[in-house]
Amino acid sequence: MLSIERPYLLFLGNSADALAPKTSRGIAEWRPDLCVGEYGDPLTLGLPKMSPAQAAAAGAKTFVVGLANAGGKVAPEWLPAILEAIDAGMDVASGLHQKLSDNDTIREAANRRGVSLHDVRHDIGELWVGTGARRSGKRILTVGTDCSVGKMYTSLAIERELKSRNYKVDFRATGQTGILIAGEGIPVDAIVSDFISGAVEQLACENDDDHWDIVEGQGSLFHPAFAGVSLGLLHGAQPDVLVMCHEAGRTRIKDNADYAVSSLRDCVDTNLAMSRLTSPDVALGAISLNCRTVDPDKVDTICRAVSEEFCLPCFDPMIHGAAAFADWLENRST
Amino acid sequence: MLSIERPYLLFLGNSADALAPKTSRGIAEWRPDLCVGEYGDPLTLGLPKMSPAQAAAAGAKTFVVGLANAGGKVAPEWLPAILEAIDAGMDVASGLHQKLSDNDTIREAANRRGVSLHDVRHDIGELWVGTGARRSGKRILTVGTDCSVGKMYTSLAIERELKSRNYKVDFRATGQTGILIAGEGIPVDAIVSDFISGAVEQLACENDDDHWDIVEGQGSLFHPAFAGVSLGLLHGAQPDVLVMCHEAGRTRIKDNADYAVSSLRDCVDTNLAMSRLTSPDVALGAISLNCRTVDPDKVDTICRAVSEEFCLPCFDPMIHGAAAFADWLENRST
Repeated sequence: MLSIERPYLLFLGNSADALAPKTSRGIAEWRPDLCVGEYGDPLTLGLPKMSPAQAAAAGAKTFVVGLANAGGKVAPEWLPAILEAIDAGMDVASGLHQKLSDNDTIREAANRRGVSLHDVRHDIGELWVGTGARRSGKRILTVGTDCSVGKMYTSLAIERELKSRNYKVDFRATGQTGILIAGEGIPVDAIVSDFISGAVEQLACENDDDHWDIVEGQGSLFHPAFAGVSLGLLHGAQPDVLVMCHEAGRTRIKDNADYAVSSLRDCVDTNLAMSRLTSPDVALGAISLNCRTVDPDKVDTICRAVSEEFCLPCFDPMIHGAAAFADWLENRST
Repeated sequence: MLSIERPYLLFLGNSADALAPKTSRGIAEWRPDLCVGEYGDPLTLGLPKMSPAQAAAAGAKTFVVGLANAGGKVAPEWLPAILEAIDAGMDVASGLHQKLSDNDTIREAANRRGVSLHDVRHDIGELWVGTGARRSGKRILTVGTDCSVGKMYTSLAIERELKSRNYKVDFRATGQTGILIAGEGIPVDAIVSDFISGAVEQLACENDDDHWDIVEGQGSLFHPAFAGVSLGLLHGAQPDVLVMCHEAGRTRIKDNADYAVSSLRDCVDTNLAMSRLTSPDVALGAISLNCRTVDPDKVDTICRAVSEEFCLPCFDPMIHGAAAFADWLENRST
């Protein structure tokens, strides 16, 4: 798997679109200790603003192009910053669909300066097809009603909470941001489809009986483009526990307004039913409710209603953390 | 997409394993008119035995390495035949995981002789992610209780029957054998997983209202390794009609004896339920029952029982053809 040198300088791009630096934001949020600073205007993630030269002098080893755009290509307006970072002697890491080395200017500059280009979506080792064989260790998988509802944040909040309680636990990253946070992982949506389940078997492999892998989910069984990835991930993860992630108030599928978001109940039932193929005793452990658009005064009321509906914890990982879920897990084990 | 010159010389390998030349067998069965002959011993597909030199003299343009093995690699014992074909001036086509051009000896021989190497699993054009947008034209998708139960044969039998009734119909290939039969297609298990649904939207794209695409299914929603591919295919196909394929008497999943084959009823219900996301009015049209291991005297009794259970046609495509299903389709439309 990948080996990316740290610490990072996070690139934010040059636009005011707060959604674009999704990967940089995730790293800053969950691993600020790995970040020397940030570069780009007018946005900020609350890190020190630094030029690549300043960051390199301060010890930064890798410039993270932590941006997403529709085409997944290196935008021309990002090029000067990437070249500045290369000139400063930093490696460059990206989670874009397009490889950094497919850009002639970037490849030639990197060769000249002797720095490495890391393409998180492409630098994948050998994979194998799934076996479905039951394996030791325990696994929690975050699943969702849609894309971009908070599966990675939920996974990381659970990892943080269980670590604080001295559980043996690892976050298992399946997307580019998660991989840059974890320092390793497999981008399941970027691999050959025959290997989806096998890749997740490999990523969250057998482990001690009291060890928990927190597997980052992707997509949704109810997303018309990405459900195949979600199902392969579900089967490969062999989850003991599912945590269903949803964004409060979202009624239409992201970038697919023709599609309604299915009910939480349908999503839970279908995920449990499909999980049972490889994990017959799977259980739902909690609902994670992303309340970013909810009036703060109403968050607890909404979460309480969902909690009562499912007789399980319901939490927003950014507001409440995952303590309620960890309590449920402890009570269940005893 | 691919463009492979015909006619073919089919390679059967050098072993007595009748299952190995799976792709060659499919081409010989469904498109004998495209085959000048066969090469290899001791197996036969009933075509004239010819050396590559003889076949080239008789007009063969492409040598088809229509063999499957566990690793998906060019077996050393196949190399002399492949080199013979190249020497005779034929292109070479393969559906193996390993690219022909990754074998130095083959690549250098092909370059020297000026012939083309076609890797059906690799020569994939640009793909896009699915949109889920409803599109015109009608589509039939074959789905299965497992891998290798007869989805391609069922699709081709339906194509043949509907063509004979003057339907506007196309077979849409999603696997290597199907692609060599159709001359075009997309190997959905060999593409990046993000694009599964989108690739099938592209393969079986919008068409005349009275045109039928017969989409070749892959895997099974109940296969622990490949269900993700099957679900992406299901969503991308937007099928109007599903045909459920099963091998009579098979009780364990292929190459996965830990897994039981689910009941036909469960497979039908789950496929219909999951299909409805992108095709709300989907219906089951028939059960295709592969009776290769059934006592010939009992085939009709078994098919009748399944037919009565589902109140739909049940046929073995190799024994009965797909006339019963075509009758059902005609009655339904009127």
